[in-house]
Amino acid sequence: MKPYRIAIAGLGTVGAGVIENLQSNAELIEARTGRAIEIVAICDRDQDSNRGVDLACYDWADDAGWLADIDGLDAIVELIGGSEGIAYDLAKAALGKGVSIVTANKALLAHHGFELAALAEKNGARVGYEAAVAGGIPIIKALREGLAGNEVGSIYGILNGTCNYILTAMRETGADFADILKEAQEKGYAEADPSFDVDGVDTAHKLCLLTSLAFGVQPDFKAIETKGIREITGADIKAAQEFGYRIKLLGVAKRQGGAIFQSVEPCLVPADSSLGGVEDSYNAVFAEGDFVEKVLMTGRGAGRKPTASAVVGDIIDLAKGLDTPMFGVTTDKLTKPVWADAGQIKSRYYIRAGGDAQITEEIGKAELEALTDKLDSPYIMRVEDL
Amino acid sequence: MKPYRIAIAGLGTVGAGVIENLQSNAELIEARTGRAIEIVAICDRDQDSNRGVDLACYDWADDAGWLADIDGLDAIVELIGGSEGIAYDLAKAALGKGVSIVTANKALLAHHGFELAALAEKNGARVGYEAAVAGGIPIIKALREGLAGNEVGSIYGILNGTCNYILTAMRETGADFADILKEAQEKGYAEADPSFDVDGVDTAHKLCLLTSLAFGVQPDFKAIETKGIREITGADIKAAQEFGYRIKLLGVAKRQGGAIFQSVEPCLVPADSSLGGVEDSYNAVFAEGDFVEKVLMTGRGAGRKPTASAVVGDIIDLAKGLDTPMFGVTTDKLTKPVWADAGQIKSRYYIRAGGDAQITEEIGKAELEALTDKLDSPYIMRVEDL
Repeated sequence: MKPYRIAIAGLGTVGAGVIENLQSNAELIEARTGRAIEIVAICDRDQDSNRGVDLACYDWADDAGWLADIDGLDAIVELIGGSEGIAYDLAKAALGKGVSIVTANKALLAHHGFELAALAEKNGARVGYEAAVAGGIPIIKALREGLAGNEVGSIYGILNGTCNYILTAMRETGADFADILKEAQEKGYAEADPSFDVDGVDTAHKLCLLTSLAFGVQPDFKAIETKGIREITGADIKAAQEFGYRIKLLGVAKRQGGAIFQSVEPCLVPADSSLGGVEDSYNAVFAEGDFVEKVLMTGRGAGRKPTASAVVGDIIDLAKGLDTPMFGVTTDKLTKPVWADAGQIKSRYYIRAGGDAQITEEIGKAELEALTDKLDSPYIMRVEDL
Repeated sequence: MKPYRIAIAGLGTVGAGVIENLQSNAELIEARTGRAIEIVAICDRDQDSNRGVDLACYDWADDAGWLADIDGLDAIVELIGGSEGIAYDLAKAALGKGVSIVTANKALLAHHGFELAALAEKNGARVGYEAAVAGGIPIIKALREGLAGNEVGSIYGILNGTCNYILTAMRETGADFADILKEAQEKGYAEADPSFDVDGVDTAHKLCLLTSLAFGVQPDFKAIETKGIREITGADIKAAQEFGYRIKLLGVAKRQGGAIFQSVEPCLVPADSSLGGVEDSYNAVFAEGDFVEKVLMTGRGAGRKPTASAVVGDIIDLAKGLDTPMFGVTTDKLTKPVWADAGQIKSRYYIRAGGDAQITEEIGKAELEALTDKLDSPYIMRVEDL
C-alpha cells in the first residue's frame, strides 16, 4: 500500500514531538498502520532553531497556505494554533480540497468545529482532534467509538494541567494563587499571559467539544458559563480540605431533563473520589453512560510527547481509513441543544464570607441568593459529589 | 445503507444486556453507525426464561452451529463462553466463511486467539473482543488505536472484579478470605465454583490478550505464571495497610531488556496510588507508553450493562467498516516473545512469616531465597511501586 502523505504546519513543542514520534517509532507505526507515514512537507516561520529532531530530510514550505495544494497530499497536521488567521484559513483550504486535518487546536474547533465538520463531510475529508482535548488521553476515541452504544448522562473533566498544577501546589504549600502562578511561570508550567488557562477559557474550549460529541449537539462555545481560579484563596483550599474536599477546575456537562447543563468553574469534589485524586498537571475525564455506568480516564493533558501521542494516533487512524463523523454523527443530525440555566440546577454550595466557610444542603439558586444576600462579598463554589 | 446483520449466540446475562442496549438506544446507535443494526437470529438452549427484554420479534436458531450459514450475515455475537466446544466451533465456522465475530470470551481468545486472528485475516473477517477485557472500559481500543504511536513499556491491570471486591471487603471488615468469599457467593458477586476468579485464571486470560496487543507478540496463555488470592490473610491486609499499601490481584506485563516479564499475582501497591484507589468490583488498567507516558482507565469490569456497552461498541465499529488487525498488527508480524524469568526481576518484596511482616529493599531472586530460606512457611508478595 502506498505511504500516507502528510504535511506538518507548525513546529513548536508539539510539532517537533510529532516528528520525533514518527521517526523513533516508524517501524512499529508502519506495522500497525499497514503502510508508511510519509512527511512530504513541513512549515514554520522559524526554519533555523534546533528542535532536537532531524529535519534535514524534509521539504520546507515557506507559506502554510501552500500546503493544501501539494499534489496527492492526504492530510495536514495543523499545529499552528489560534482560533482565527492562518490555522483557520489552512483548515478551510485543506478540507475544501478533500485533504484531512489532524489538529491539537481546541480554540479553532470550539469556534469553527461545526463549519469544519460540515466542510469535511462535503468533501470526503476527516478531522482528527484527539490531541485537542486532554492531551495523551484517548478520550475522543473512547466517547466517539468505545462508548458509542451509550446515551451519555454526564461528563466531568479536569482539562487544564496548569490550573490543576496550581491548585495542587496551593494545597500542598498553603501559598496563595499569585505566588504559585509566578512560580509556575518561572518553571514554564504556565504561560506569560496565563489568562486562557487560569480564567477557564482553555477548559471551555475543550468542554465544548466533549459536550458536542457526548450529547450529539452542535458545538456552542459561547453558551458555556466560564469562571476561572484566580479568586480562590489559600483559606478556601484549607476549608475545603477540612470538609473532606479538594478544589478542581471542572468542565461539567450533564443532562438536566430535556436540557443540557454546561459549566466551567472551580468545584469542590470529595478528596477520596477518583477525580479528587487527580493531582499536579494530570488531566482526567469522568463519564457516565446508561450502559457502561462510570468510566474514568486519567493521563498527561499536555506536553510535547503526550500530545504527540494523540496526534500520531489520529494520523494512524486516518491512514487506516477510519471513517467516523467528527462529532460522532453527521452534522445534519447534530441538534441545537436547549442549555439548562444554572438557575434550574439544585446543588450543594460552598460559601465563604470573611473568615467563615460553610457547605450548604442541596438548594436552588433562589435559596442560595437568599442565603448569600446579606453576606459581605461571599465567594461561592458548587459541590460535585460525583 | 443496508442494515448490519448480526446473530446472537448465548442469551445469558450479557446476551440479554446486548439486546436491551440495541433496543433501547436503537435510534442513537443508528445515527452513530450510519446504518441500522439488525438482529436476524438468536440462539440459546433455554428459549423460555424471561430475560427482561422482548425477544418475540427475533427468529430462534435451535443450534448455534446453524448461525454461520445464515445468508448475508455480517457478524455473530458469541456470548456462550468456554474455551472449547460450541464457542470455539462457532468462531471457526463463522470466521472461515468470512463472518465476523464479536465476543466477550477471554478463555476462547487466550487459548485460540492467534489461530482465530489468522483465520479472520485469511477470510476478510474481524474479531471484536473489547468486552473480553475489563468489561465496559474501552481498553482494547485505547491500546490498539489510541496509543498506536507508542512503544508500550508496561501494563498493570486490576482485571477481575470478584477478586477486587473480596480484597476490598477483607480490608474494610477485617474478615478472612473464606468468610468474604462465602458472602460474595451469597450476593451473586462470586461463582459457586470461584476458582477461575480467585485463582487468577480469568485475570491471566485477560492479561494474555493485553500483552499480545501491547507488545505485538503472539498470545501465549501457558507462559503466564499465575497465583491467586486464596492464601492472603486478614493479617496480610492489615500489615500491608500499616506499610502504606493495598493488596491487589495484578496482571502485569513489562519489558525487561529484550524480554517481556508477565505475571498474575497479588501485589502490594501504594494505597495513595491511582491503582491503589481502585476498589470494590471496579477494574482498571494502567499503561505506560514512550510518548503518552502514563494513562489509567477505570470502570466496571463486569455486569450485564457495562459488558453490553463494550459488545455494542464493537458491533458499531464493525458495522462502520473499522478494519484493524485483532492484535494491532497482522499475525505474520506478531513475534514469538522471549519471556523474562521471574529470577531476572529485581523487586521489593513483602514477606510474612508467623506473626511478622516486612518489606525488603529491591533484591533479586537469589537474595530473596536466602532471606526466606530459614523462615517457617513464609508468604511472599511482590511490591509494585508504580
